[in-house]
Amino acid sequence: MNKLLAEFIGTFWLVLGGCGSAVLAAAFPEHGIHFVGVSFAFGLTVLTMAYAVGHISGGHFNPAVTFGLWAGGRFATKDIVGYVVAQVVGAIAGAAVLYCIISGKSGFAGLATSGAGVFATNGYGELSPGGFSMMSALIAEFVMTAAFLFIIMGATHKDAPAGFAPIAIGLGLTLIHLISIPVTNTSVNPARSTGVSVIAAMFGNGASVGQLWLFWFAPIAGGIAGALLYRVTKCEKSAK
Amino acid sequence: MNKLLAEFIGTFWLVLGGCGSAVLAAAFPEHGIHFVGVSFAFGLTVLTMAYAVGHISGGHFNPAVTFGLWAGGRFATKDIVGYVVAQVVGAIAGAAVLYCIISGKSGFAGLATSGAGVFATNGYGELSPGGFSMMSALIAEFVMTAAFLFIIMGATHKDAPAGFAPIAIGLGLTLIHLISIPVTNTSVNPARSTGVSVIAAMFGNGASVGQLWLFWFAPIAGGIAGALLYRVTKCEKSAK
Amino acid sequence: MNKLLAEFIGTFWLVLGGCGSAVLAAAFPEHGIHFVGVSFAFGLTVLTMAYAVGHISGGHFNPAVTFGLWAGGRFATKDIVGYVVAQVVGAIAGAAVLYCIISGKSGFAGLATSGAGVFATNGYGELSPGGFSMMSALIAEFVMTAAFLFIIMGATHKDAPAGFAPIAIGLGLTLIHLISIPVTNTSVNPARSTGVSVIAAMFGNGASVGQLWLFWFAPIAGGIAGALLYRVTKCEKSAK
Amino acid sequence: MNKLLAEFIGTFWLVLGGCGSAVLAAAFPEHGIHFVGVSFAFGLTVLTMAYAVGHISGGHFNPAVTFGLWAGGRFATKDIVGYVVAQVVGAIAGAAVLYCIISGKSGFAGLATSGAGVFATNGYGELSPGGFSMMSALIAEFVMTAAFLFIIMGATHKDAPAGFAPIAIGLGLTLIHLISIPVTNTSVNPARSTGVSVIAAMFGNGASVGQLWLFWFAPIAGGIAGALLYRVTKCEKSAK
Repeated sequence: MNKLLAEFIGTFWLVLGGCGSAVLAAAFPEHGIHFVGVSFAFGLTVLTMAYAVGHISGGHFNPAVTFGLWAGGRFATKDIVGYVVAQVVGAIAGAAVLYCIISGKSGFAGLATSGAGVFATNGYGELSPGGFSMMSALIAEFVMTAAFLFIIMGATHKDAPAGFAPIAIGLGLTLIHLISIPVTNTSVNPARSTGVSVIAAMFGNGASVGQLWLFWFAPIAGGIAGALLYRVTKCEKSAK
Repeated sequence: MNKLLAEFIGTFWLVLGGCGSAVLAAAFPEHGIHFVGVSFAFGLTVLTMAYAVGHISGGHFNPAVTFGLWAGGRFATKDIVGYVVAQVVGAIAGAAVLYCIISGKSGFAGLATSGAGVFATNGYGELSPGGFSMMSALIAEFVMTAAFLFIIMGATHKDAPAGFAPIAIGLGLTLIHLISIPVTNTSVNPARSTGVSVIAAMFGNGASVGQLWLFWFAPIAGGIAGALLYRVTKCEKSAK
Repeated sequence: MNKLLAEFIGTFWLVLGGCGSAVLAAAFPEHGIHFVGVSFAFGLTVLTMAYAVGHISGGHFNPAVTFGLWAGGRFATKDIVGYVVAQVVGAIAGAAVLYCIISGKSGFAGLATSGAGVFATNGYGELSPGGFSMMSALIAEFVMTAAFLFIIMGATHKDAPAGFAPIAIGLGLTLIHLISIPVTNTSVNPARSTGVSVIAAMFGNGASVGQLWLFWFAPIAGGIAGALLYRVTKCEKSAK
Repeated sequence: MNKLLAEFIGTFWLVLGGCGSAVLAAAFPEHGIHFVGVSFAFGLTVLTMAYAVGHISGGHFNPAVTFGLWAGGRFATKDIVGYVVAQVVGAIAGAAVLYCIISGKSGFAGLATSGAGVFATNGYGELSPGGFSMMSALIAEFVMTAAFLFIIMGATHKDAPAGFAPIAIGLGLTLIHLISIPVTNTSVNPARSTGVSVIAAMFGNGASVGQLWLFWFAPIAGGIAGALLYRVTKCEKSAK
């Protein structure tokens, strides 16, 4: 149960912090943080919570990480469902708190009813910030999550210097956002995508819900591929 | 006494550095550092001073941290008052030095007499940079400080990798600013809020003083909540 | 073979991530990451992969690093060719995936047929982002790569604190980009230059191919010089 | 001699990298790195070289650091002159290489003959980027360098976590730039100020030379004060 609470809190923070920076601060007049600031915010949610609860739950905060580490021989099959449920519920809770905050903004008139990236949702085609196709989105989310799990597998390996993994992993997520926000608004995390889509749909903009399948499929498939690729690279036959 | 001097200096630096970057550099024509630069500045004041005097005083620099660590079983009741006084005095001193510097700017005509964020003060409603309500401000300050203390409790736990806590905590404060400057100009620190409000009031703009209660109440309540939540998550019954 | 696979993947990621951030996100309307974001992206590709596979291949991802470490007495002559081939092939693969992603952008009409920095290629003279001469480019690439290898030699020395080298090296590459993107679009890495030049030439813009010689010559010469300078500074006569 | 070579190279890199990013990239059209990028560049020159040669010379790269550590009981009187000379010569060499690079820019017509911050020189009054007075400059340079030495003394103390000092010190310098570039273009380093002033004077703009006294006096006085304040805070009577 403690592990699930840690995953709930970590994913709550990832969505509140990462998506919160995007919704509240990215486009602030004159002084906005733009994609650079949002990229650091997402990465730092993971860096901070990995130091805070990595020693409790391992610090996944992301179903693609959970499935990837399972494929990598580092996580037990029986624990997957609990982790993923805790992550998704945490993501929805984080998005709900974020909605509470923005709804108190002077002149707030509800979420935009169309356009890409509303409430920090992920999307492709007309819902891609830069107008990228479904195929581009599939490739980007698959490859980015594969690299993410490859980095996670390597940086947490016993041969890597101890204690530095949260830096490598958190700043790895920053890097992934620096590259791919224009393509899909960057997910690499099905829980993060689901959290903001659910709340956006509850408050008048359900457009992104129909595209959620991609942000479950591509990150999980990519995460599994990245973890397996690491095992091949490291010549690992069994776990860790 | 050494501990109090360390807390005085650390909080002096937090206000001079964090608020100083906001007042001096955020809106500089063409090359200003905007919210991203201010966010890094606040975080780096804590990162640097936590490495410098963390081994002397623990490196709180913030009454919400002191109360949070007390609630978390890591800090003695009898030391609270001294720490908080040292922090507030240090914050006022930092703001005073900052005022000395800006008053020497060519054409300086005193602080603006109205508007949000004057002299880096915190506020809600009409004094919120983005026009957020008192309720949004309460939620944001409470939740952000709760997450901050949760991270501090976890990153300084003996199960976390040793030596990395100042990175997690400092960059955690950067993250909090990336999210919430638009809401309240970001406090999560009653001393920081008080320091600039006092100096601003002395030099002609006392508007933020009437809102200081929120920036004492919400961060301290949030800090206590975050520390307790960490203990629940870690199943701790007694200290550390 | 595992080492070569690690070098392939690391260089793939360096080009996909570094050049990808430049091509996809640098000039995004309103919220683009500009040179600061691209600089962090390049550095973080190395930081992340050095933690992930540094314990497998040493984490070069760059022929200039391989030659430099060889000159520095840290790398065997017989392994150079394999490493360099793996790096170049990885760079081309990374550039190919990047092209796949951008070709799915709505309204994509192929690469620009003229101008500096197309598809993140490196160049001098008319192909320098800031219009710098061949001599300026030679000096910049030589000196930057020399400093890069000097930092690598020192940060990985047994007298330096263990485990921190990927931070010093990755952020060193960020620094190099903060300085020199205007001069040559920053290479310091022959594989990175070759990867994007080859793909750009395949898809209609071969202008940078004729300048590739400089981005092999200057970084490798500089890397060797920097490594030798380190040995002089450290008074090393034999390896490590 | 090895120590002096290390100080020469480190200060060369500080000026080439820090001032180079300012001169080459800060104001680049559309994608410039502005004060945020320059702040990171300065900090990363120290972070990288402190990991590279900290184990050789201690990694000062700055006369104010040398005098401060001497006052702090960490550095021998007899070594001061050699270090300071090596630093100043390294700074001039770094500025000279930078001038070589910019002189190859298409349309380069020499340095501007008036204005603040030409060739990254430091200044006050009419030579302050933001028009700050000599008194503001004195306060800022004194207090910033005092904080810098306080951080250096603390982060390198045997009670601080080992290996992290270059991160605290390098990012501390980033922080100092985020605050004070508008005031004096940020020196806190007499060698850095001297290096660019000398080269600027040689190539037609000697305006900053007459203000160099402040950038020797205030940083060295501040550095000594900061180191002594640390000893008081730590209750140190003798060295380290």
